[in-house]
Amino acid sequence: MPVISKKGQSMPQSPIRKLVPYAEQAYKEGKTVYHLNIGQPDIKTPQVALDAVKVHSLDILAYTRSEGSEGYRKKIADYYAKNDIHVKHDDIIVTTGGSEALLFAFGSIMDVDDEVIIPEPFYANYNGFSTASGVKVVPVISKIEDNFALPAIEEFEKLITPKTKAILICNPGNPTGYLYSKEEIKKLADIVKKHDLFLIADEVYREFAYDGAKHYSILQEEGLEDYAIVIDSVSKRYSMCGARIGCLVSKSKDVIATALKFAQARLSPPTLAQIASEAALQTPQSYFDEVNKEYVERRNVLIEELSKIEGVKVAKPKGAFYCIAELPVKNADKFAQWLLESFDVDKETIMVAPAAGFYSTPNVGLNQIRIAYVLNKESLVKAVNILKEALKVYKD
Amino acid sequence: MPVISKKGQSMPQSPIRKLVPYAEQAYKEGKTVYHLNIGQPDIKTPQVALDAVKVHSLDILAYTRSEGSEGYRKKIADYYAKNDIHVKHDDIIVTTGGSEALLFAFGSIMDVDDEVIIPEPFYANYNGFSTASGVKVVPVISKIEDNFALPAIEEFEKLITPKTKAILICNPGNPTGYLYSKEEIKKLADIVKKHDLFLIADEVYREFAYDGAKHYSILQEEGLEDYAIVIDSVSKRYSMCGARIGCLVSKSKDVIATALKFAQARLSPPTLAQIASEAALQTPQSYFDEVNKEYVERRNVLIEELSKIEGVKVAKPKGAFYCIAELPVKNADKFAQWLLESFDVDKETIMVAPAAGFYSTPNVGLNQIRIAYVLNKESLVKAVNILKEALKVYKD
Repeated sequence: MPVISKKGQSMPQSPIRKLVPYAEQAYKEGKTVYHLNIGQPDIKTPQVALDAVKVHSLDILAYTRSEGSEGYRKKIADYYAKNDIHVKHDDIIVTTGGSEALLFAFGSIMDVDDEVIIPEPFYANYNGFSTASGVKVVPVISKIEDNFALPAIEEFEKLITPKTKAILICNPGNPTGYLYSKEEIKKLADIVKKHDLFLIADEVYREFAYDGAKHYSILQEEGLEDYAIVIDSVSKRYSMCGARIGCLVSKSKDVIATALKFAQARLSPPTLAQIASEAALQTPQSYFDEVNKEYVERRNVLIEELSKIEGVKVAKPKGAFYCIAELPVKNADKFAQWLLESFDVDKETIMVAPAAGFYSTPNVGLNQIRIAYVLNKESLVKAVNILKEALKVYKD
Repeated sequence: MPVISKKGQSMPQSPIRKLVPYAEQAYKEGKTVYHLNIGQPDIKTPQVALDAVKVHSLDILAYTRSEGSEGYRKKIADYYAKNDIHVKHDDIIVTTGGSEALLFAFGSIMDVDDEVIIPEPFYANYNGFSTASGVKVVPVISKIEDNFALPAIEEFEKLITPKTKAILICNPGNPTGYLYSKEEIKKLADIVKKHDLFLIADEVYREFAYDGAKHYSILQEEGLEDYAIVIDSVSKRYSMCGARIGCLVSKSKDVIATALKFAQARLSPPTLAQIASEAALQTPQSYFDEVNKEYVERRNVLIEELSKIEGVKVAKPKGAFYCIAELPVKNADKFAQWLLESFDVDKETIMVAPAAGFYSTPNVGLNQIRIAYVLNKESLVKAVNILKEALKVYKD
């Protein structure tokens, strides 16, 4: 019998995945489960995007260009210009979600056994893309005590080897909600220029910057043209995760020419979703204002309620819609399972993402969870109350 | 300055890509170009699929399950059952085109430097996916003289090393149009079982089998459950290349569990396209009958016209919508460029795909071209006439 590859065997699973059977069991037992574990927003997709595919006049659902249709890329460039990011449509390759943009970036700049430094905790699927690409994630630890700010430059430099090809950040961050300052981006710019590394920034949460803070893109940093690669996506911006449309943006002609070869091999990004995504660019500012207002309120409620719980430490997120909370438990993995299996308040319980899966350093973050505040405020209050009651009785 | 990866540098380009600027120049000069080079059919997408997205009632364009929605996978299983292929919905992972299914298959069963044996000429993008996955294509030559039938078993066995993990076929074949017989599939089954290899079959042209021939899937072959991996796609079946929906099908639980981890890392296949693809399964048989009738007529016209040209040799395709023709030229690459740059009949010329790009053995197929018969009959006759006139005057 033929056997699975070592790569396939070592492909990691999502940190939430193993909890799914317990959640399904909880449903069967008639429990309501508040999902604090997922990144699928409950926010409505802009109507203009949903409507665009209803009025299409295609009679052949054909391929588009591998790099995405020119019309759409020009409009993306306009969108960036409005955000003070000045790129041409030729600097953009439309991809099947941010996921594919990251795969193209990894393939274009890293060979097998090359290394990418990533501040942890980080988006768990970076591990999957690294394994799939045969590259090694080298984590640099950021701390809840520092609100997950950029680790000191020396911490990065200690980790740089001849195999290091890139630094990857997520800004604002999933799972930390941390928004890097302009000064932090400039520090990263200095390191990558000094050591000839690429700087990849996953900026899919760009619009979700709160408290008057302004997102600073690595594409705005002068002198970084040959180094900066941005990963972007419509998934969170327009609450259209299912479109699977993202893009890779770089002013490096080498990076774009190389990523294009990966894009050509898979022929084309999805055509219908490009129609919806192009229309989504007409979304009025009021949509974003309302969404951000909603998220800020949710965050405030969440942080306020969490702070009331004895022994819970939480980093206040400045962006995205996640936060990491440290709990007075030894093992959040077991706690998360117990919540689904053995606990409820009036037949209601919660599902949380154990944070250890967002670290690649072993035994770090074991007492942390990630909370996605993609539920309405009322549900959030109920959910945090369940957490509070659970912690009163849980023994590990 | 940071540098591009070796992998990125060695990513191959499509054999047609370098001709594109010459085609664009020809347009500028006011020439009509008949595209015999592309696999984008001119056949209309079934209306039922186009309409399905017009009546969607989504208010959030959300992720589906990573393996595709259960409803859609159950209907795919029904589709297979109608084709005498008996699989469960759990044997199916919905992918972003056949391309992604192939990437998942390669990742699941091959590590870096492992080898896959592919009868050549083969679909050029297999080279791209192999490079992206770090695996090596080992070609086994099939010949135009044999109509591109399966090479002798001994030819395969000569190439098997400890690094060989799989044999990959495309059935019916792009670019050959060859349809493997049941006996040929059985021969392949014997080799893979004897040597513990996976057998991957790209069956995206399943419906395009002509002259009363019946497609025999590797999933129909008993005893191959642990070995067979089918790559499938809606692209050609329903002329909906732009949907980017395909699937990976295997009865091997190990293969499915592993491919699922790759699928989870990229979250979800496109949601709108799944809606269209699910609806496409209602396409009436009359659609396929008409399409096949049209392709058979085109093929017959094409072969008949080509056979009239002195010095042209052509393998009669039994499936798909491609054929390979051998021309009385030394270098079809230069000839293809010359056709666009320097030749026309009443301001009309043709674009063909030089076949060398479909071989990985150097210097093979240099005098061959691939013709896609995705143009209407009238255009095909005109196009072949241009080829005929061109060959009269071309000197290489």
